[in-house]
Amino acid sequence: MGKYTIGVDYGTLSARALLLDIETGREIATSEFTYPHGILQADFFAPNALERSASLEHPQDYLDALHFTVRDVVAKAGITADEVCGIGFDFTSCSVLPLTADGTPLCFLEEFSKEPQAYVKLWNSYTALDEAEHITSTAKAENAPWLKLFGGKVSAEWLFPKLYEILHKAPRVYEKTAHYMEAGDWLTWLLTGNRIASASFAGFKALWNPNTGYPGNDFWAKVDPRMDGIIGTKVTTDVRNAGAFAGGLNEVGAELTGLNVGTAVALPLIDAHAPMCSAGAVNAGQLLLILGTSAGFIVMDDEYRLIDGIFGSIQDGILPGLTAYEASQPSMGNTFAWFVNNCVPAAYMEEAKDRNMGIFALLDEKASLLPPGSNGLLALDWWNGNRSPYNDFDLSGMILGLNLNTKPEEIYRAIIESCAYATKTVMDVYQKGGIRIRDIRAGGGIARKNPMLMQIYADVMGMPIRVTDSIQPGCKGGCIFAAAASGQFENVYAAADALADKCETVYVPDMQRHEQYVALYEHYRRLATYFAEGENPVMKYLRTI
Amino acid sequence: MGKYTIGVDYGTLSARALLLDIETGREIATSEFTYPHGILQADFFAPNALERSASLEHPQDYLDALHFTVRDVVAKAGITADEVCGIGFDFTSCSVLPLTADGTPLCFLEEFSKEPQAYVKLWNSYTALDEAEHITSTAKAENAPWLKLFGGKVSAEWLFPKLYEILHKAPRVYEKTAHYMEAGDWLTWLLTGNRIASASFAGFKALWNPNTGYPGNDFWAKVDPRMDGIIGTKVTTDVRNAGAFAGGLNEVGAELTGLNVGTAVALPLIDAHAPMCSAGAVNAGQLLLILGTSAGFIVMDDEYRLIDGIFGSIQDGILPGLTAYEASQPSMGNTFAWFVNNCVPAAYMEEAKDRNMGIFALLDEKASLLPPGSNGLLALDWWNGNRSPYNDFDLSGMILGLNLNTKPEEIYRAIIESCAYATKTVMDVYQKGGIRIRDIRAGGGIARKNPMLMQIYADVMGMPIRVTDSIQPGCKGGCIFAAAASGQFENVYAAADALADKCETVYVPDMQRHEQYVALYEHYRRLATYFAEGENPVMKYLRTI
Repeated sequence: MGKYTIGVDYGTLSARALLLDIETGREIATSEFTYPHGILQADFFAPNALERSASLEHPQDYLDALHFTVRDVVAKAGITADEVCGIGFDFTSCSVLPLTADGTPLCFLEEFSKEPQAYVKLWNSYTALDEAEHITSTAKAENAPWLKLFGGKVSAEWLFPKLYEILHKAPRVYEKTAHYMEAGDWLTWLLTGNRIASASFAGFKALWNPNTGYPGNDFWAKVDPRMDGIIGTKVTTDVRNAGAFAGGLNEVGAELTGLNVGTAVALPLIDAHAPMCSAGAVNAGQLLLILGTSAGFIVMDDEYRLIDGIFGSIQDGILPGLTAYEASQPSMGNTFAWFVNNCVPAAYMEEAKDRNMGIFALLDEKASLLPPGSNGLLALDWWNGNRSPYNDFDLSGMILGLNLNTKPEEIYRAIIESCAYATKTVMDVYQKGGIRIRDIRAGGGIARKNPMLMQIYADVMGMPIRVTDSIQPGCKGGCIFAAAASGQFENVYAAADALADKCETVYVPDMQRHEQYVALYEHYRRLATYFAEGENPVMKYLRTI
Repeated sequence: MGKYTIGVDYGTLSARALLLDIETGREIATSEFTYPHGILQADFFAPNALERSASLEHPQDYLDALHFTVRDVVAKAGITADEVCGIGFDFTSCSVLPLTADGTPLCFLEEFSKEPQAYVKLWNSYTALDEAEHITSTAKAENAPWLKLFGGKVSAEWLFPKLYEILHKAPRVYEKTAHYMEAGDWLTWLLTGNRIASASFAGFKALWNPNTGYPGNDFWAKVDPRMDGIIGTKVTTDVRNAGAFAGGLNEVGAELTGLNVGTAVALPLIDAHAPMCSAGAVNAGQLLLILGTSAGFIVMDDEYRLIDGIFGSIQDGILPGLTAYEASQPSMGNTFAWFVNNCVPAAYMEEAKDRNMGIFALLDEKASLLPPGSNGLLALDWWNGNRSPYNDFDLSGMILGLNLNTKPEEIYRAIIESCAYATKTVMDVYQKGGIRIRDIRAGGGIARKNPMLMQIYADVMGMPIRVTDSIQPGCKGGCIFAAAASGQFENVYAAADALADKCETVYVPDMQRHEQYVALYEHYRRLATYFAEGENPVMKYLRTI
């Protein structure tokens, strides 16, 4: 038995792998593989077959990524496959594909090679809106008890609407679909021969819960008679906790990875949740902020509670024995990028160039000199709508307090502050829901790269924020799961205790600034309430233009 | 008697002159003179003598401007002084200066040459705030009946606070001040030997009205015993209508202008009002929009009414027999300039350069392709506060509806639309006050140069807008006044009928777009009310940061 594990983090456009020394916790080697097909474009399919809001991928890319990155980290580390005791991974979700009875993606068949419905529908594919609505209204009509567990509304992003959509748009594909699975679960099946669904995917994206399972076939028959019987056939009922031992690598898996037959495989989890283990946020009340293009706010608690205004609360959703709670902000880094691309004048670009620095570094420098409240600006961060607490994508961004002396860095800082207020809003929602937030950690590219922003976040939250160290926190979560699944540690908790980041970079709030932010935050909340809770529906009206 | 008149338009940084053929209405020649001293800077005065919010000028510049521009237009036209029958002019207001008994500016005396209080305090000089407040509170304590005629508050911009300030800050200057006059009235005195105040200045800026005159010396004694007796001494009580015959040029005036002794001089008016005659808006209910750095909205009506939310309503304030009403927007072109300087990305600058066009032309082109509502954006135009209807400079600009696809031209158009909504707000205030708006005319640099903006204005207002033709509408107003004062026409109305612009460029509203704007305007008004009328004081709070 070796002393290394490998974690593979399947993102939207590429997969990354990390080789971890599970005796020392050292990160030894990393690798990245960009999917050759990328997001599939219209010319890949039959003419006019691709819908505008579809986001589809080719599953061959995932196999190629595994083939390349695992071999690459082993080679870079200069070790042999014998020294690797386990492999774990995460995947975007809900990213689902139809399979034959033997696990072949239907899109691999000549018959369906030009049919969008046969490919992987990514998490951000929004073509099943009608199906989601119909499932929701059927559940409401039936008074389905599970609906409230999922916020009262079935999202078009989830598994069942995406499957139902196939029935409508490509009945031949539906008919041929023996199994409809998350791409992450399909990989488990390929690697081990065991067809198991991870509770992480099923709980968050497929209306499953550990007490009552999926909505039963009675329900699906009411949605559509042709959906009768899907539970137990197209949708597997063998659901197990993420991180559990899924099996050892079989011949196929060994060939795909270059690792030995029998190497332990851990059940995958949603990519956004993988950093929880890496960050050591494995106990109740540890809030993890994942700050990137968009932002996620995850916490676990030992009680199961229904909390209004968050995205989901799933028992055993990340780690067994704890309920995972998830909230998110649909744009964060995206908004900063929008600002830089659309609102920064040429003079600033030239100054950055003259001083041989990036434009973000220049803006950060200028913004860091400003006081809380950015010389009198206040923004609402809803450039891509709001998920928590309003789940309303008709909401939009706002900047208030503009005057003839307003400078670009002031607007930039105001946008950052608005994102911090959004984060505090989520923390308040969790706390009002009964979860005691005991510490705050932050991961993701922005957390590591932007001390100015992190200090603002700490000042707004009024609590210290620890930043995770790993440059591949998703991969590292997979490594920790693999370390547990391989039997080297008693369980995931023990593996996380030993291997998680030390989070030694800590942003301590300046409590004087925090006091100023308390007042600003109250104004933010008042405006948010005004525009989001029906008092003034102007944002919804503007969306109709 | 000749067939030409000359109008001189005294602005903040330069004076312009126009020679008009009053038989044909043709504009023959123009001239401009930039004041050599400009706005006086700190090093011009004794150390630390100049206050930050002071805006002072040197009166010699006005004489030099007259000397240069009048001779220049006569020479350019190739005519002789014999052919000029009159001269008229306008001046910024309240721009006031202290004079000796013989009309010499105190700042010309060696003793006061380094003393800011001895120079011309321009209209935008804001150092007399305390004095304005004290005069207001005294008027309130005395229940002074005239206070409500001036919006219930004495502005620091006006004559009396500026005079009172001299008493506090330079008692020697106060003592030596035989006459305290508008620079425009001082020029009348110099040119004709007649010390007459124009009702235009006195009515709008010196608490005067044709029925009861100035607040009496009783009142000023209560403000400060040392102010007792100013009415009739430092402040002349000979107030006559703008445009009236002030006298013929005397020897000094003939030397200053190069014109003949005896040439008719018309009493001046406020620069912002001079375009009314030029635009032919000389009848009740003709609304003139003056669109430039800031914007003014002037209308006259045959009844005198007190209307809440406008800047002033002055009987005979512009033309005898009509009450002049004024409202304004403290930033308009300024806001567009702010946008271009602070918010337009380098790529747009490069595109404009590559296509050999100005950045405004590029933005206009892109914005002209957008629908009403600018793809879902709504702004409040308060980048420099709001004067009408709220008179609140703690209000600030806002943009709402921002998303990750928002383009710079969308923001630009939304700002323009917000300025149009502000203009419609003023029109509504006038109409609710009882004035029937019968037609709309527009002058000023932006009106002539920006058809995209003018079409939006017409669409928002739902009425045709005629654009004035004159390139020097202020000067032309002076020419028309001079034509009347010279006796060539029966009165100002007859002169305006014959000589005013034909306004042949007309923007006709697209009524389908107007319908869309009606809904958007309602949302604008609702937001304006919310932020300005106390429901949410967040803008005031942000000003304290």
